[in-house]
This record gives sequence, C-alpha cells and structure tokens, in this order.
Amino acid sequence: MRVRLLIAYDGTAYAGWQIQPNGVTIQETLERAIRQITGETVKVHGSGRTDQGVHAWGQVAHFDLSRSWEANALLKGFNAILPPDIRVRAVYRAPMTFHARRSARWKEYRYFIWNGPVLPPHRRLYCLHVPRPLDRTAMRSAAELLIGQHNFAAFSANPDRPVESTIRNLFQLQIKGRGAELCIIARADGFLYKMARSLVGHLIRVGVGEVAPETTREILASRERTARVPTAPPQGLFLWHVAF
Amino acid sequence: MRVRLLIAYDGTAYAGWQIQPNGVTIQETLERAIRQITGETVKVHGSGRTDQGVHAWGQVAHFDLSRSWEANALLKGFNAILPPDIRVRAVYRAPMTFHARRSARWKEYRYFIWNGPVLPPHRRLYCLHVPRPLDRTAMRSAAELLIGQHNFAAFSANPDRPVESTIRNLFQLQIKGRGAELCIIARADGFLYKMARSLVGHLIRVGVGEVAPETTREILASRERTARVPTAPPQGLFLWHVAF
Repeated sequence: MRVRLLIAYDGTAYAGWQIQPNGVTIQETLERAIRQITGETVKVHGSGRTDQGVHAWGQVAHFDLSRSWEANALLKGFNAILPPDIRVRAVYRAPMTFHARRSARWKEYRYFIWNGPVLPPHRRLYCLHVPRPLDRTAMRSAAELLIGQHNFAAFSANPDRPVESTIRNLFQLQIKGRGAELCIIARADGFLYKMARSLVGHLIRVGVGEVAPETTREILASRERTARVPTAPPQGLFLWHVAF
Repeated sequence: MRVRLLIAYDGTAYAGWQIQPNGVTIQETLERAIRQITGETVKVHGSGRTDQGVHAWGQVAHFDLSRSWEANALLKGFNAILPPDIRVRAVYRAPMTFHARRSARWKEYRYFIWNGPVLPPHRRLYCLHVPRPLDRTAMRSAAELLIGQHNFAAFSANPDRPVESTIRNLFQLQIKGRGAELCIIARADGFLYKMARSLVGHLIRVGVGEVAPETTREILASRERTARVPTAPPQGLFLWHVAF
C-alpha cells in the first residue's frame, strides 16, 4: 500500500529534509516514526528537499508499506510519536502511480518578513526581520519581471548535481501583507536549488533601494548566479502547498 | 530620571518575570542589560509578575537612572544587548510619579487556543491545543456570568502572600476567533494570582461540556478555590496590554 502524507514542520531544530550525516533531519524522523508504528523500514519520498532551518506547512511525502493500514490509525500514531515540531496533518491511501516529487504539478512557497523596527519575539523563528522600510511598489515591479517562463539560473545556487534544465514557469510572485507583516508568495511548476530564497533575496534588495527594479531583467538574462543576488535566510521560508 | 519600558517576550525559556533562585527570569535579564548599557545597577519594577512560560506582548516596567539618557539610545542599546526572545518595543522618559504596578488602571490578558485536531508546529509554543470541539456559545454564556465586579477568590490560586481583597472588576471577557484559532480576551482593573489562567481553565471546561455554564455562578459565589477550576497551562497566555 502506498501512503501519502501532508506534513507541517518547524525547521528550526532540523538539518533540513533529506537524511545527511550532520544533524537530525525531517526525513529520518519520519522514517523512525514509521518503524515504530508499523515495524517496517521504509524510505520516505518528499515532494522536494527543504534546506536547514526552512519550515513547511504543506510538505507532501509518500512511502510504501507491505501490510495494509487504516489511514486514521497512521495519523494518530504519527502525531503520538513525532516530536511536536513535526505534525502530520493528513494521511491518505494513494495509488501506486502517485509520487510525491514526480507527480507534483506546482509548488507554492511563502516567505514571511517583519518590516518594522522591532521584531516580535514570538515571530522571530518564523520570519526575517528587515528593519529598513521596504518599497512594496518597487518590489512588485521587480516581481512582474520575474513572472513567467524563464531560465532562472541566475536565481539558483549551484546544486550538488547539475539539473537538466534551469527553465521554470513562475506563474505567481506576489507581495502581500499589511502593516509590518509582509509575505511573498511564489508559485512555480518547480523550483531550482535555493530559487525561492534567491527570488526573495533579490526582491528585498529592490525593496530597500539597493538595486532598481529594472535590473531584474538584466540579472535574469545573464543566466549566471553572482553575488548580486543574495540568498534570503531560511527562517522566513515555508513550503506552503504542493499541487498534484 | 525615571524610564518607562514597553516590553514583549517569549516566556518559553524563562522562569517567569520575577527574580528567583531557580532559572533565568525576564527581570534579571533586563537588569543585566541596563547594567551593560548604563553601568548602573537598578531594580526594574514590572506592572505585574508573569509566571514561568507565560508570554508578554505589552508588559510595562520602570526603573530609575542617576544620569540622563536619550530614550532612543536606550531602545537601541536594549535591542542590541537583549536576547531575541526579549524585545523592548518602546522607551519613554516618565515622571517620577509613574509606577508600572501602582499607576496601572487596567490590564488585558489574551489566551490563545488551537481548537483543531492537529496543532501547527509554528504555533505550539504560543497557544494551548484543545483537540475536542469547543462550544463557543456555552463559553460565552459562562463568560457573561464572570463579567463585572466580583470576589474572584474561587478563580485564583493561593498567593505567596495573602492579598487584602480578592474583589476585582472584570469588565471584559470575550471569546474571539475564527476556524481553529480562538482567543480569550480578559480585561480587569487587576488580576489575582493565576486568575487569568483560572478563568480560561474554567471556560475550557465549559466549552468541552464537562460543566454547564450556569455552574459559573455557583463557583463564583463559593469564594473558594477547589479542583473544580483548573489552571490553563502557561504557553497560551500573553500579558497583552497595560493601561495607565
């Protein structure tokens, strides 16, 4: 039986999604929980890796069990065993053709910014503090130039393994929020390595007036990642939704 | 010069407001910061003590300095030196007649509840998880019976030192929120020891149907604290506002 999970996590204490030698990861914590609940040793496939310190509200993953389980029993088992900074929001029985990464049609990331002089303590782990006033109009102008199908090589870090194509369709890049709270919503058919944080890093540079919105066109056309595009820190980023 | 502070803190890592032998407190962390900034050893007076694990969005405190300081210089100094889970939102020069506790006219506490099956990880430190559905209408009926000037002895824990009077004027007790997020707002001319958490504890018992709203009248009239009134856990509680 193939199981599909909808997962939320606070990435603060984790070395990201994927199993690696240094630090505890979300993936291994889930696999350990599955072993405890079902006695089976499985590999959990996520819709994508999130980096160290990145959060998720709507991560999706799948794994296979040799025996049949009731979805609700698994859901209760997960939330009884997992630490409170990882929660399984839903468990579904999925067809064997379902694949959390390959079946994904698009993804949404949300990046939260506190744009005021003092960062509220209870928001400090879940947003980036930008004390300098952000020009939202300039940010929106830059965002307009990024929307669409482009080669986003200039907005991704060099990945461990080179990807076949760096062309992605970014069909939404929105700046929302009122008062000091600001949220950047990015939807694309896929995100390159560190692409979400690079888009945000660029929009913040535009917002504080370090670069003009029009430079976006030039950077995008360069197809080369340079120091001109900073990577925004992880704590503001949430993998928000994966659509299938 | 008398200095008035508006302070927000995440109480998770602290043994409450007031200096005590076990654990680091908010008060001592502020006093240490003042020593670092000004070189002066002072006592910081808060508008009230918050218990271990209780948060604040609008705590108010005052202290005296022998030399004169610019309010903005102190604000910057505080937020450069204090840990990120304590923030000074504002610094004012106050008249020598101002006293953070004695000058307070009323206080507002807010208690946050997540009333849904799964507690979102990024909310876990700042609200109470109540998975059983809460009957908000019943809670509002009980709240109506608590509003007004009453002897709240049945809704307070025995304090270290007996207070002169257990009569308080609770002029607001509101249940707000949509979806799973619920917030109980309590305003009174003063709160007895653990009164805010006892009011919430009782309203939750009413909300889950363990006791009828009408028992509120009887409990209030008993003027005696018994196990009938539970104290809600600290992580949902925020000292929200102090009015002068």
